Amino acid sequence: MSTQSLQQLAERLRRFAAERDWEQFHSPKNLAMALSVEVAEIVEHFQWLTEPQSRELEAAKQAEVEQELADALIYLVRLADQLQIDLLEAANRKLAINEAKYPADRVRGSAKKYSEYP
Amino acid sequence: MSTQSLQQLAERLRRFAAERDWEQFHSPKNLAMALSVEVAEIVEHFQWLTEPQSRELEAAKQAEVEQELADALIYLVRLADQLQIDLLEAANRKLAINEAKYPADRVRGSAKKYSEYP
Amino acid sequence: MSTQSLQQLAERLRRFAAERDWEQFHSPKNLAMALSVEVAEIVEHFQWLTEPQSRELEAAKQAEVEQELADALIYLVRLADQLQIDLLEAANRKLAINEAKYPADRVRGSAKKYSEYP
Amino acid sequence: MSTQSLQQLAERLRRFAAERDWEQFHSPKNLAMALSVEVAEIVEHFQWLTEPQSRELEAAKQAEVEQELADALIYLVRLADQLQIDLLEAANRKLAINEAKYPADRVRGSAKKYSEYP
Repeated sequence: MSTQSLQQLAERLRRFAAERDWEQFHSPKNLAMALSVEVAEIVEHFQWLTEPQSRELEAAKQAEVEQELADALIYLVRLADQLQIDLLEAANRKLAINEAKYPADRVRGSAKKYSEYP
Repeated sequence: MSTQSLQQLAERLRRFAAERDWEQFHSPKNLAMALSVEVAEIVEHFQWLTEPQSRELEAAKQAEVEQELADALIYLVRLADQLQIDLLEAANRKLAINEAKYPADRVRGSAKKYSEYP
Repeated sequence: MSTQSLQQLAERLRRFAAERDWEQFHSPKNLAMALSVEVAEIVEHFQWLTEPQSRELEAAKQAEVEQELADALIYLVRLADQLQIDLLEAANRKLAINEAKYPADRVRGSAKKYSEYP
Repeated sequence: MSTQSLQQLAERLRRFAAERDWEQFHSPKNLAMALSVEVAEIVEHFQWLTEPQSRELEAAKQAEVEQELADALIYLVRLADQLQIDLLEAANRKLAINEAKYPADRVRGSAKKYSEYP
């Protein structure tokens, strides 16, 4: 795992946009749209695969999916930065809520409980 | 910014799924769908706002958007983990490509260049 | 407006899939994914446009958007057909609900009421 | 299948928006976002189902999915109407292209050919 942090990535993206005078395009509304487009490019790789096939990507597809995941993270971090949200903290807080809401011994292996989640 | 890392979040998510026997639902195909659903919940908050309004969220909406961003990061990290992709490294590599492809002095403020990006 | 009906389009799509032995790929799960990917391709055309710009597309972009809308309708009709849902009837029924729920004289021009809709 | 046409639905939606003074919110940019949100609500119903499960919805879920499909058609028709696009004609034209591009005797049952499509 990279030693770079999300915070450093956010700063690099801020610089990238500032140097190009592209902040004007980076309203949260537009960034949310761009994020959804990148995520659809991830979905596109999986739409005709079976679930087992999706667990065993061939090398070329794996490399493409990796680039789409990178794009998704880039827009997600940029959007969070514009909204002054600490992504990691928010995710850890949300996960603590989920851990309390779905106690392991009550929901184990249950598709039914799972379908209500999250 | 949280001192927790993406790597620690990935491990916490792995434990969360394992303890509930929910790995069976976490094929990359399903996780890509779940990620797209969470991102649409972000989009939903912005769909009827003007761009300026989206830059100035009221407190209640800001708190809701923060939760949606958290969910999106959770599924993105979980998906990357299932595919053994280092998200931060991939994002930094992709950003280096973008920096070379869109030299600041050639594209500054250009909506046209921008529309071709990414 | 074309004299062809949605029903005729559904039948043409059924034949198209049958002749190619592609029904095997057309589970509602997969078709829902494909539909979301096509819709994201629509969103992609609008993500960096202002709202006024989005109301005045140039001819080349208009032609591309038209193709994306066509793809979206194709997958939506195919999905409805696989689920034996009458799309037009469902839409008219839903619209009747919305008409009752949002009386014109109570919600006129209200962004607030609008933001709760649908 | 309903005797109502897409054209009649488009007119009903036009009236619905005009009576509420909601055209101001219906820029193609906003409608594309709203459409993507509705489609994600379809995806949400299928995200944890296996493909065979998605072909056999229980009654309650079927009714919910029907409402989501209705919402998707409503926004798709409204978006097409704002852009003055004849949806059915566009879909039939696109399908003619696909029929020529994927001759049945060359692509029958081929997942590989399929994965390139559309």
